[in-house]
Amino acid sequence: MHILNITIIGLGLIGGSLGLAIKEGADFGTVITGVDRDMHSIELAIERGAVDCGTHDVRQGVEGADIVFLCTPVLQIVPLVQRIVPYLKAGAIVTDVGSTKQQLINSITAVMPENVFFIGGHPMAGREQSGIAAANKDLFRNKWYFLIPEANTPAEKIDTVKKVIGWTGAVITAMNIENHDRYAAVISHVPHVAAAALVNLLYTCPDWENSKRFTGGGFKDTTRIASSNADMWADICISNSDEIINSLLRYQSLLNGVIDAARSGDRTTLHKFFSEAKQRRDAIISESL
Amino acid sequence: MHILNITIIGLGLIGGSLGLAIKEGADFGTVITGVDRDMHSIELAIERGAVDCGTHDVRQGVEGADIVFLCTPVLQIVPLVQRIVPYLKAGAIVTDVGSTKQQLINSITAVMPENVFFIGGHPMAGREQSGIAAANKDLFRNKWYFLIPEANTPAEKIDTVKKVIGWTGAVITAMNIENHDRYAAVISHVPHVAAAALVNLLYTCPDWENSKRFTGGGFKDTTRIASSNADMWADICISNSDEIINSLLRYQSLLNGVIDAARSGDRTTLHKFFSEAKQRRDAIISESL
Repeated sequence: MHILNITIIGLGLIGGSLGLAIKEGADFGTVITGVDRDMHSIELAIERGAVDCGTHDVRQGVEGADIVFLCTPVLQIVPLVQRIVPYLKAGAIVTDVGSTKQQLINSITAVMPENVFFIGGHPMAGREQSGIAAANKDLFRNKWYFLIPEANTPAEKIDTVKKVIGWTGAVITAMNIENHDRYAAVISHVPHVAAAALVNLLYTCPDWENSKRFTGGGFKDTTRIASSNADMWADICISNSDEIINSLLRYQSLLNGVIDAARSGDRTTLHKFFSEAKQRRDAIISESL
Repeated sequence: MHILNITIIGLGLIGGSLGLAIKEGADFGTVITGVDRDMHSIELAIERGAVDCGTHDVRQGVEGADIVFLCTPVLQIVPLVQRIVPYLKAGAIVTDVGSTKQQLINSITAVMPENVFFIGGHPMAGREQSGIAAANKDLFRNKWYFLIPEANTPAEKIDTVKKVIGWTGAVITAMNIENHDRYAAVISHVPHVAAAALVNLLYTCPDWENSKRFTGGGFKDTTRIASSNADMWADICISNSDEIINSLLRYQSLLNGVIDAARSGDRTTLHKFFSEAKQRRDAIISESL
């Protein structure tokens, strides 16, 4: 088999971890080129073995690539695709790791030439730390990796993406766009908003300086994902706004139920709320990866 | 020093862990009597070494006790105090481990005889599992343990409670009732409601059976405390309803800010929301125990 030329644009937590995982898992020759605006990230990515070589020049980075992974915050993906399209070789595959898909794929489909193939991707993996320094070769192992191919994507192109992602140890599943964005809103996006709001709520206490010392394990776990990258999450809220707003409104109405029950001293309703949550979460934990 | 007679009423996660921790840490002789309605819990508590002996008879359990720990769900505490008061010896100390204090202390003060002393307590420790089987001698180690003494509580009684709790490795801090209930609402109660509501939100998806499989580490951590004991949390929402409602309303207004910003595509506001949450959480983590 010939050498596979892989380019990773955006050498942060996800891009860096992808490079490390592919290097670890690849069962035939690959050359990984890293592209980033920050030379320090490129140097560190080379030093850590996440990429073989690096450049801040997007054109130089994608020319000759068989597969390009776009690992920047979501709102940078479409402008980036517009910049790289002229330099992609015929047959190249472009895939991303963004958390939202509908708006992205609409825009990308409009600018993608016929002989280049976009396959949306979304690894359900992350850490609250960001940057290449936090990258880890096992970040994707036994985690879901959603692929959102379009109806006209050639099977061999999908197979190539699956093979490369399979090297990371991720569990790949195909999904359509609508399901993806709706699932992602309730499974990931709204929990991030909820966690960040819990931290900001604590901060609104007049005696925040005192009260913050007393947080325990419950608060820390519940808000862990509130320490995630702000650029990434602002972009997600913009690019999946319909589903996130819809889910947040339903979330508000669940909270209203608790407020009403607490106000009227309705212990039965409160007990049902907590015991159903417990049963459902226990079911989730027993079935998830 | 004479033998200290300790009684623990309610041999669940907290009561059981308290017994194990005291047995491990005590630097002079103690006899721990366990009281529970469930004979199986008593047997298991004796077998695990959390208590020296046990009974389901409350009177028998508290007669002769120097210090009584009330470890039942919050709403059972006041009726329990009313039942044990006739059998407490002069000078006895009663303390609890409930998560809410204002309503509780109002009611208890009204029924407590002059020669018996109530000192409210609240360990900031827990697990999502409940029951004596989940008890752990290190549950309180390096965790906050709030004590809420009243102005007229004798210093020697406070010292006795501090000594016993100190054996568990907890970090003891005195706090007034109002601060306690307000802090507990934002640090613990609202996060529990928020986590349970995230699980119930996922369940409201029409395709819950499919979507629940795809939860990742973020969802699991954010909702860990949603697997807690429903009786305990229903009681907490009833007994700290004012502070919880007040905090939930402020929480909703923070969520409304996100909804408005997502609707109008206001990325600056969204970025500020997430980056402030990140900075504040990082400050919390660096300062907490």
